Amino acid sequence: MTQTIEETDHFEPKFNDQGLLPVVTQDAGSGRVLMVAWANREAIAKTLETGEAHYWSRSRRELWHKGATSGHTQKVLRVLADCDQDTLLYEVEQTGAACHTGRPTCFYREVTGAGLKPTE
Amino acid sequence: MTQTIEETDHFEPKFNDQGLLPVVTQDAGSGRVLMVAWANREAIAKTLETGEAHYWSRSRRELWHKGATSGHTQKVLRVLADCDQDTLLYEVEQTGAACHTGRPTCFYREVTGAGLKPTE
Repeated sequence: MTQTIEETDHFEPKFNDQGLLPVVTQDAGSGRVLMVAWANREAIAKTLETGEAHYWSRSRRELWHKGATSGHTQKVLRVLADCDQDTLLYEVEQTGAACHTGRPTCFYREVTGAGLKPTE
Repeated sequence: MTQTIEETDHFEPKFNDQGLLPVVTQDAGSGRVLMVAWANREAIAKTLETGEAHYWSRSRRELWHKGATSGHTQKVLRVLADCDQDTLLYEVEQTGAACHTGRPTCFYREVTGAGLKPTE
């Protein structure tokens, strides 16, 4: 029997033509969405293996162990896949700031008709 | 004075080479991440204008008013931009199921060493 991608228990991440997929990172305690980054196969494997969030840095073109430099690591409690397996969700315990600006989340501005408005 | 992209109040969404950026959709009440989809400039404008979530359907290659067919619309309470303005977050009130499989969220499976495990 063939299982559809929506029902299969086989993890078959669908990467884009650069071998990447988007990852949403959410604080497991507060439910806050902290950031969106990208992962390749290696970053996902490292995340599952170590329990710490790994991504692919598109600007530096290298595996990115979040917090390796800043100390702002993310302990990954669960990794979830979406229905068509082209996006992941990391549920994490964040140490320090998730955003490189020092803010707790990267989503600190609301889009309004009059431009961006800080939310905190 | 030049403001950095991280501090500006000017909304200048950074699209990829297909004119799209990822949108994370979160239930405003429960904090649940419901789905990730894509938006172009028109989808963002329509969302802000109508208060209902619009995306760009990559498979159908058309503007996608979520729920127009299924009735599973999303009332958008806030649109947030991330630090580098290449991702948006829609905070919504979801009517019915967010996922096309009929589940409340697209993220209904956990990635484990033994494959995917349903979470609900």
